Amino acid sequence: MSFDVTLLGTGAAVPSLSRGTTAQFVNIHQRHILIDCGEATQIQMRKFKVKFQKVDLILISHLHGDHVFGLAGLISTMQLLGRTTQLRIIGPKGIKSFLLQQFEHVGLYRGFPIHFDEIEEGASGLVFEDRLLEISTFPLNHRIQTQGYRISEKPGKRQLNKEEFDKYDVSVSYINKLLDGEDIEDNEGKIVRSDDVTFPPKPTKSYAFCSDTAYHPPIIEQLKDVDLLYHEATFIDKEAERASETYHTTAKQAATIALKANAKRLILGHFSARYQSTDMHLAEAKTIFEQTFCPEDGERFIL
Amino acid sequence: MSFDVTLLGTGAAVPSLSRGTTAQFVNIHQRHILIDCGEATQIQMRKFKVKFQKVDLILISHLHGDHVFGLAGLISTMQLLGRTTQLRIIGPKGIKSFLLQQFEHVGLYRGFPIHFDEIEEGASGLVFEDRLLEISTFPLNHRIQTQGYRISEKPGKRQLNKEEFDKYDVSVSYINKLLDGEDIEDNEGKIVRSDDVTFPPKPTKSYAFCSDTAYHPPIIEQLKDVDLLYHEATFIDKEAERASETYHTTAKQAATIALKANAKRLILGHFSARYQSTDMHLAEAKTIFEQTFCPEDGERFIL
Repeated sequence: MSFDVTLLGTGAAVPSLSRGTTAQFVNIHQRHILIDCGEATQIQMRKFKVKFQKVDLILISHLHGDHVFGLAGLISTMQLLGRTTQLRIIGPKGIKSFLLQQFEHVGLYRGFPIHFDEIEEGASGLVFEDRLLEISTFPLNHRIQTQGYRISEKPGKRQLNKEEFDKYDVSVSYINKLLDGEDIEDNEGKIVRSDDVTFPPKPTKSYAFCSDTAYHPPIIEQLKDVDLLYHEATFIDKEAERASETYHTTAKQAATIALKANAKRLILGHFSARYQSTDMHLAEAKTIFEQTFCPEDGERFIL
Repeated sequence: MSFDVTLLGTGAAVPSLSRGTTAQFVNIHQRHILIDCGEATQIQMRKFKVKFQKVDLILISHLHGDHVFGLAGLISTMQLLGRTTQLRIIGPKGIKSFLLQQFEHVGLYRGFPIHFDEIEEGASGLVFEDRLLEISTFPLNHRIQTQGYRISEKPGKRQLNKEEFDKYDVSVSYINKLLDGEDIEDNEGKIVRSDDVTFPPKPTKSYAFCSDTAYHPPIIEQLKDVDLLYHEATFIDKEAERASETYHTTAKQAATIALKANAKRLILGHFSARYQSTDMHLAEAKTIFEQTFCPEDGERFIL
């Protein structure tokens, strides 16, 4: 069982030789999720040894080029390398026609099915779930429809406390009920409380992705107690006005969101190419939220 | 005055860490031409120090992803970095809607004008000319409409042979006519022949681009005496059948085209990712055409 996030591109708007445009790879219990897909994401995946044929779900935040210009190429490569399994793409309105129009022009015959889920503007709530995880979306505040995402483990089963269970001398056939949290009474009227013979499930973990957005406190509710938060920080404090005008966030503002949401750790990204380093981003954010990180492309965070 | 070609991507179909997909930069007498624009071409341009804001003309061979998926990103970056000068794009039918549909989805406001020239399927002839150069196109033989291009210097003026001219003792006002190739008769009836007092113009040079295509002898006529020929060689001889099925060329076939066209030098490219090296391409081509080259990304050829 694993849950980790690889930053494939940490730059904003324009790719450089040191930072790609936005893309992240989330590996959660053998489900492989790509979040956003700027140009050359497939090359970043090769570089950082992320197997893109494993990706079964792509989440798209918004239809700006630095978040989607790598999609058609990635899907084209998946096809050329013989993919047959379904790919699911969840994103804002327009993501389907954006891709299908390109496929039509380049004559891309998709040898594998693609299932699109388009999110209505302003919508929030569950967009995906399976046995082990669930993904919810919420609106960010950018120039066009932009969705944030929170990927959460589902609670697992309770674990048997064998030592305590054995003290009761009841049939093992009751174990499943006890693990489901039910108290039981056996044929002889003996009562066993689930809490007394089982450990609670391991705490669930979650990861949230917020890019691109102006400073937008309404999202704090969606981010409550998140274990790892990625929040864009295109600018530092000196450019706060520019951040506001362009619907982006400063490092301090991102740290404020993390603090108010009671997040455990904060990753900043979407750094404007105007900055030679992220030292200022880090210093400013840490004045508000100590557990802040400013990664390079290729860094991996384990939850 | 300079005329050189930089190979920005020499791989086929799928970009790898060692070879990008097709793109070339041609610098001819301070006019800057991009030929094809696979995904991540803008990153390759940065890597190989090609100034993409200088590009004023883009030639597109065909609408397959590995030749056009970098276009929208490049144009987006040109805009974000403040370009105002016009960009001209010449390519097959559909290139305009392929780009404009993407721009519409990502809300790309073009701060600079883009002029499109779409070439009819099967067309050949002049597609561009200015004072110093001309560009002609011709159809290749691929699965969809695909255009080859030949970029040629225009003949310059004749040069004065001052020593011979001085022997005639006629007015210097006749020089321009003589340089234009006209013979003159001065007021005293003295006749001076242009050939006797001027040197012929420097020979013009030309570069031709042929990708993607099956082995297609009709193009030989268009490539006559070309100084530098780029011809795709996706496969080696062992995969000749596969080459034919997919409308691609082997190294030997490309060399045969170069030989029959009386080209001076041949660059191979569009190498399938199945080959670890291009040693076999080079060896096979050289059995037919000695002046063959198999470049890595970033190599520059000077005409």
